[in-house]
Amino acid sequence: MTATGHIQFDEWVDLYASRVETMRTSAVRDLFAAASRSDIISLSGGMPDIRHLPLDEVSKVAANAVLQEGIAGLQYGDTTGRMQTKQIICGLVRDLGIFVAPEDLTVTTGAQQALDLLAKSFINPGDNVITEGPTYLGALQAFSAYQPKVHTIPFDEDGMRMDLLEAKLEELGPRGAKFIYTIPTFQNPGGVTMSLGRRLQLLKLARTYQIPIIEDDPYSRLRFEGETVPSLRSLDEEVIYLGTVSKVFAPGLRTGWVIAPRPILQKLNMVKQGTDLCGSALNQVIVEHYFNEIPWREVLETMINTYRERRDAMLTALEEFFPPEAAWTRPSGGFFVWITLPEYVNTPQILSVALEAGVTFVPGDGCFPSDSGRGHNTMRIAFCYEEPENLREAIRRLSLVIEERLELYRAFINAGVLKED
Amino acid sequence: MTATGHIQFDEWVDLYASRVETMRTSAVRDLFAAASRSDIISLSGGMPDIRHLPLDEVSKVAANAVLQEGIAGLQYGDTTGRMQTKQIICGLVRDLGIFVAPEDLTVTTGAQQALDLLAKSFINPGDNVITEGPTYLGALQAFSAYQPKVHTIPFDEDGMRMDLLEAKLEELGPRGAKFIYTIPTFQNPGGVTMSLGRRLQLLKLARTYQIPIIEDDPYSRLRFEGETVPSLRSLDEEVIYLGTVSKVFAPGLRTGWVIAPRPILQKLNMVKQGTDLCGSALNQVIVEHYFNEIPWREVLETMINTYRERRDAMLTALEEFFPPEAAWTRPSGGFFVWITLPEYVNTPQILSVALEAGVTFVPGDGCFPSDSGRGHNTMRIAFCYEEPENLREAIRRLSLVIEERLELYRAFINAGVLKED
Repeated sequence: MTATGHIQFDEWVDLYASRVETMRTSAVRDLFAAASRSDIISLSGGMPDIRHLPLDEVSKVAANAVLQEGIAGLQYGDTTGRMQTKQIICGLVRDLGIFVAPEDLTVTTGAQQALDLLAKSFINPGDNVITEGPTYLGALQAFSAYQPKVHTIPFDEDGMRMDLLEAKLEELGPRGAKFIYTIPTFQNPGGVTMSLGRRLQLLKLARTYQIPIIEDDPYSRLRFEGETVPSLRSLDEEVIYLGTVSKVFAPGLRTGWVIAPRPILQKLNMVKQGTDLCGSALNQVIVEHYFNEIPWREVLETMINTYRERRDAMLTALEEFFPPEAAWTRPSGGFFVWITLPEYVNTPQILSVALEAGVTFVPGDGCFPSDSGRGHNTMRIAFCYEEPENLREAIRRLSLVIEERLELYRAFINAGVLKED
Repeated sequence: MTATGHIQFDEWVDLYASRVETMRTSAVRDLFAAASRSDIISLSGGMPDIRHLPLDEVSKVAANAVLQEGIAGLQYGDTTGRMQTKQIICGLVRDLGIFVAPEDLTVTTGAQQALDLLAKSFINPGDNVITEGPTYLGALQAFSAYQPKVHTIPFDEDGMRMDLLEAKLEELGPRGAKFIYTIPTFQNPGGVTMSLGRRLQLLKLARTYQIPIIEDDPYSRLRFEGETVPSLRSLDEEVIYLGTVSKVFAPGLRTGWVIAPRPILQKLNMVKQGTDLCGSALNQVIVEHYFNEIPWREVLETMINTYRERRDAMLTALEEFFPPEAAWTRPSGGFFVWITLPEYVNTPQILSVALEAGVTFVPGDGCFPSDSGRGHNTMRIAFCYEEPENLREAIRRLSLVIEERLELYRAFINAGVLKED
C-alpha cells in the first residue's frame, strides 16, 4: 500500500459501521472547490458575507482575548462552555423573548454540533423523526448517522403545513417520533416563515402527541421587512432551541448553542464529553469580547441592508429571466430562495451544465431524505454571498440552462410524448 | 415546568436513545468544579501547564491571524481543515518519522473528535474493539456512544502485553475486531511506553488478523530521558495516527488531527460533515502562525523541563510517603503515574475522603470499560499541573487517606477475617 496519489483499493470496506452506508456527502460542501473558480458565480453556499466585519477591531478583540483572559483562554475548558460566554448568549436570546439562565444552555461547535448531539442522544436505528421537507441538508446529515426514518412535512408560504403534520402525528401515535425538527423563520432551504397561528398549532400538537420540538434559529435576526414572529421557544419553555453566532458575527468561531430543558441538557452534556471534551475556549473568549466591545448591532444592520438589496436583486432577476414554468418563494429574511420546476426537469442532472455555464446551485434532492426520491425538480439558490450584479448574471445564466431543458421537454409535450404537469 | 433551579422530573426519559443508558460522565470532568477550590491540590486533571507560553507573543499571533488572513479566518472552511494547517502538521509529524501529504490527514476538534469520528465510522452495536486496560477514559467515552464490546489488554512496563493480545485475537479470529486502540508512548493513564520489540509484534499481529490500529500519540514529544521509540505510524503506513497541539502548544485551540489511509479518511470526512460542517478556521490560522512565528521548540523545551522536575518530585514523594502495599509506574515522559493498591482498597470510595483531605485523583475504574468490574483498586495521578512542593504535599495527603484504609484492613487480616493478596 502506498500513501501517494493513486486510487486505493479499500481493504477496510467490510469493517465500516452500517451507518456509513446510508450517509452521503453534501453537494454544497463538495462544490466548495468548484465555487472557488473565479469565473463561477456561486448560488450554492450558505456563507454569510462577513466582508462588513470591522477587521481591525476584530483583530484587537482577538489580541485582547489572549492578553486579558490569558491562560484560561488557551486551556481546556468546561464541556458545556464558559460561564461568561453563556451569559453573553443569555443576553442575545433575551432580544428574541427567550429568558434563560446560563445553566439552561450549552455552547456547541456551531449549531451543527448541537444537531449531532441531539441525534446521538435521541435516535435509535429505525426511530421516527419529523422535519420540514425540504429541510436543512446538514440536519439530514447529522440525523442520518443514527439511522432514523425521517418523515418530511411540506411547507407553503406560511411554513410547515399543520394539517399534514397532524395527519402524520395521528399515523405515528403519541410519542411515535423522537422529535419534530423545524427552522420556523426564514427556513433553509425554503426561505419561508411559519406564521404565528401555525406556531401555536405546532406547539399544541407537540404537547398533545408528547413529542419534543427542536427549533433551529440561525436566521431570525436577518429580517428585511415586516413584523417579527415570536420564536417557538419564547412561546413554550419545553422547546429545544438552537442558535449560532455564524450569521450575526462570523462562522469561523464555530460558536453555537443549544437551550433545552435541564434533564435533556444533562444528557447532551454527557454525550458531548465523549465527542470533543470541550469546545475552544479561545473562540468563546473572542465571542465574549466581540459582543461586549464592538457595536455589533450596527455591523449587523449593515449586513441586513446588504442581504436585503441582494434578495431584491435576485427576485427581480427571477421575474425577468426565469420561465413561466418555474415557481419560487419570496423570503422576507435569511439567505435562500427555493425554486420548483416542472416534474420533468432533473436539477441534479443539470448541475454540471450549470457549472459549465458559470453558476452553481444546490440541487433540491439533497434537502430531502435520500430514501424519499423527492426534490429532483427543485433547487436552493442563495442570495447571501454575491453582489447584486453577479446575482443578476447568475440568474440569467441559470435561466438559460433551465430554458434549454424546458425547450426540449416542450417539444416532447407538443409531440404528445409527455404530458404537462 | 419551570426553567429555574428546581430538580425536574424527566418527562422525556423514555425518548432517549439506548446508547445514552450505558454512557457515563467522566469523574475527571465532574471534578473540575471541585478542583477549582483553592485549598485542593489536583492530581486528577490531564491539563498541560501552559503558564510558560509567551502570552504577549501569542496575543500578537492572534491579532495577526485576523489581520493577515482576514475574512478567510472568520468564514466557514473546508470540512477537512485548511491546507496551510495541514502543511504545518505534515512538518510537525515529519519530526516523528511520519512522512505524509496534506491529503493524508484531516484536522479535528482535538484528537477527541477524531476518536468520535473513528468510532462513528467503524462501530456497530456489539462490535469488538481492543484497547489497553486501563486506557484513556475519553476514548472509552467516545467509543461507548456506539455500543461496542471493549476488550482490554493489560500492560506492563514495556506496554501492552503481546502474549495476551495474541490470545485475544486468536479468540476473536481474523477481522474479529474493528480496531486496536493504543497509546503506545507515555500511555494515559499508565505512563508506560511500548518497547520497539512489542511495537513490531503489534504491527505483525494486526496484519495477520487484518485489524486496523489506531495510534493515539498526544505525549510523545514530552520525553524526559532515554531514546525515542519510533511511532507505530512511522513503521507502518496502514496505522491510523492521532495527534494534537494540546500538549505542545495549547488545548484551547482544540486542534488535533487524524492521519489515515485515504479510503478510511474519505469515510471520516463524510462523517465529519454531519458532525460539525467544519472546524474553527480562526483556531487553525492561529496554530499556523504559532508554529511559523514563535520559537516553539524552545517553549516546549521549557515545558518538558518543568514536567521532568514534577515527575521527579512525584516519584520521590511516592517513595517517601506511600505504603509498601502500593505499586506504581515510573514514566519517562508524559503526564501520569498509575497506582495499584491491594485488591481490598476501593479507590472510587476513597475519592470523597481524599477531597476532604485536599487532594483529587482519578479513580482507576473509569479507565476500564464500565462492564469490566476492574480497576477499583487503582488510580491515576497526574504530575503535569502542580508545582513540586504541591505534588509532595498532595502525595503526603493521599498517603494518609490510603494508610487509614490499609490500617483497617491490616487489622482485619491480622484477625484472620481477610486474606492477604
